[in-house]
Amino acid sequence: MTSYRFARRMAAVPPSFLGTLFAVSADPEVISFAGGLPSPEVLDADGIARAAAEVLGEAGPAALQYSTTDGYLPLREFIAARYRRRVGLDVTAENIQIVNGSQQCLDLAAKCLVDPGDTVVVEAPGYLGAIEAFSLYEPRLAAVPVDERGPDLAALERVVAGSRPKFFYAIPNSQNPSGLTYPDEARRGVAELLDGSGTLLYEDDAFGELFFDGRPRRPIGAALPGQAVLSGSFSKVLAPGMRCGWIVAPEPFLRQFNVAKQAADLHSNHLCQLVLMRWLETHDLDVQCRRVARVYEANCRLLSEALDDQVPGLVHTRPEGGMFMLARLPPGVSSLALFEEGVRRGVAVMPGRPFYLEGGDDVIRLNFSNVDGERIAEGVERLARALRALSRG
Amino acid sequence: MTSYRFARRMAAVPPSFLGTLFAVSADPEVISFAGGLPSPEVLDADGIARAAAEVLGEAGPAALQYSTTDGYLPLREFIAARYRRRVGLDVTAENIQIVNGSQQCLDLAAKCLVDPGDTVVVEAPGYLGAIEAFSLYEPRLAAVPVDERGPDLAALERVVAGSRPKFFYAIPNSQNPSGLTYPDEARRGVAELLDGSGTLLYEDDAFGELFFDGRPRRPIGAALPGQAVLSGSFSKVLAPGMRCGWIVAPEPFLRQFNVAKQAADLHSNHLCQLVLMRWLETHDLDVQCRRVARVYEANCRLLSEALDDQVPGLVHTRPEGGMFMLARLPPGVSSLALFEEGVRRGVAVMPGRPFYLEGGDDVIRLNFSNVDGERIAEGVERLARALRALSRG
Repeated sequence: MTSYRFARRMAAVPPSFLGTLFAVSADPEVISFAGGLPSPEVLDADGIARAAAEVLGEAGPAALQYSTTDGYLPLREFIAARYRRRVGLDVTAENIQIVNGSQQCLDLAAKCLVDPGDTVVVEAPGYLGAIEAFSLYEPRLAAVPVDERGPDLAALERVVAGSRPKFFYAIPNSQNPSGLTYPDEARRGVAELLDGSGTLLYEDDAFGELFFDGRPRRPIGAALPGQAVLSGSFSKVLAPGMRCGWIVAPEPFLRQFNVAKQAADLHSNHLCQLVLMRWLETHDLDVQCRRVARVYEANCRLLSEALDDQVPGLVHTRPEGGMFMLARLPPGVSSLALFEEGVRRGVAVMPGRPFYLEGGDDVIRLNFSNVDGERIAEGVERLARALRALSRG
Repeated sequence: MTSYRFARRMAAVPPSFLGTLFAVSADPEVISFAGGLPSPEVLDADGIARAAAEVLGEAGPAALQYSTTDGYLPLREFIAARYRRRVGLDVTAENIQIVNGSQQCLDLAAKCLVDPGDTVVVEAPGYLGAIEAFSLYEPRLAAVPVDERGPDLAALERVVAGSRPKFFYAIPNSQNPSGLTYPDEARRGVAELLDGSGTLLYEDDAFGELFFDGRPRRPIGAALPGQAVLSGSFSKVLAPGMRCGWIVAPEPFLRQFNVAKQAADLHSNHLCQLVLMRWLETHDLDVQCRRVARVYEANCRLLSEALDDQVPGLVHTRPEGGMFMLARLPPGVSSLALFEEGVRRGVAVMPGRPFYLEGGDDVIRLNFSNVDGERIAEGVERLARALRALSRG
């Protein structure tokens, strides 16, 4: 029997809750607010099928061949042009690198930037996949609280001044897990605070195309030239299973990022890049994003109204877009206990603990993108019963 | 102007030669033995197109959804069953994790195993993508010479005894870059030497399905239970652009590997896993592998005969399979100079330097999978002229 000698970094990874979640999600009797998947009804399988048939019919073996590390040029040009048009970013294809979903940006950016012991700032609550990815590079993680007013700028200023972090990782638009969006004043505040500090802004914009009002929000990094990177993804608006995301960054940064990408997996799936580009040439992405946002807006309203109606003591965020909201539990109720009691009563929520470096057991994350609208009220009823049972106990 | 504060590891990456190579490969006038691509004629675009149409037609949105980190279960079961049948490996789907091409195994295995300063053993010559991937984890790399008799076992024993390496990375079948295959005696020698040493065997089997004689070679790791990992890939036999490879490993190792995979990019392309599985259900992979191997065998013979005929002073390996051979240059001829002189005369070869930790300028790698058979003799003529020009100079 071999005892493996794993690297020290493997001990730094927080324990994952996903195994339990997957087991719960597989039970059709459970109404799940726990996951993070897009709604199947917004995924255009017919359109992707047509695009795949066209690409393979026209390009033949070339669609199956090895390709370049930076990604398919027309796709990078499309992404850059869209940023120029939608939010006035001054970027070209030279600023875009394709990755396997924006999760890969987290890994590769940390790889490029973080030596063990370096400080990295995350949000509290923050995206658990980022905490996992960064942890493997053994940083000192510092958390800055985020609420409706945006991040706690005083706390951010203290950590930037005190330990000159390598970067501040933020999801300013409809954050996972909270659904919070930074107000304009907070955006200006973050840019002013970081400007010239030596701390990069890493802005993760997985949800910026899913605002219910359809209005684009200009990236904070637009005010931090040469000091910001931005990630985006087709996962939330087209097809997560095709694993296609990107990073937007200044060229000196991308040169190093490209080295890390090549070492990691040579290049991203070439066939799927061609297929996505064909879909984008033959469809209107704006129309698709509005379609997705309308479905999620309706679900978000149903969830919000059901919570206000049936569990008025549960304070929750009011998302302007995205797929998630966060709810604070009544004093003395543990999110882990609520998860277990909920599953017994046929409803699943995501406990808050993994979204925090410490604490977090007093909140839950509720996903509204991948739950049938007609079952939301019933799900909240079950949740209310579970809460009552715990409050009595 | 920002000066980025990159992590120390980024300075550890050897400079890449790929940019120059890509530029050369794009010129249709140049006959290229420099690349490493499969022949387009063996990539079954029609079969993949039919599989994609079927999968998207039947599974619909489910084919585009997020999936599990370990990979599509029927695909993992297929791979495990094939190992059981072909080479008698005692494995199930529980021992298989899907990755984005086997390059990703290099990154993730090093991530799981290597702390800065740990010793990792590579072959000399060795696969340059592995040297790049490992370098980012700041190991002490040690190289063991490999020739027709296999690795230098005395050298391997010294480094294993002296610094207890985390692993020995080897490509025992039709190695990239040399085309060498370990003889049976060398295989037994490696297994005996590593057994109980605390050093894992990392066996990269990208080319094991492409032996010209079609005979499967049993992995060395079969004799090292609990102390070996094995990687494989569909890139060389089906479609590199779909980035689908795997690692075979004991479960305790895979649990850590799975954590690293999830942090790196959540999971591999789900759509392409479904499409590949459909192709495998509706075609005979053995027939496909024989088809590919016959094309490469013919090209290898043409190249070998042309070299023996036109450049008898050039000593080269005699591959039993795969896509590459290695040639030793006459004394005083530099592979970098030959690369430049060759490009001027319309032929490209891969200089040896990147395949070695030190030295290597006295060899070149010749690829025979992605060159038109009818142009091989002409390419070698050009190479002979370039060599004569350099020898005169």
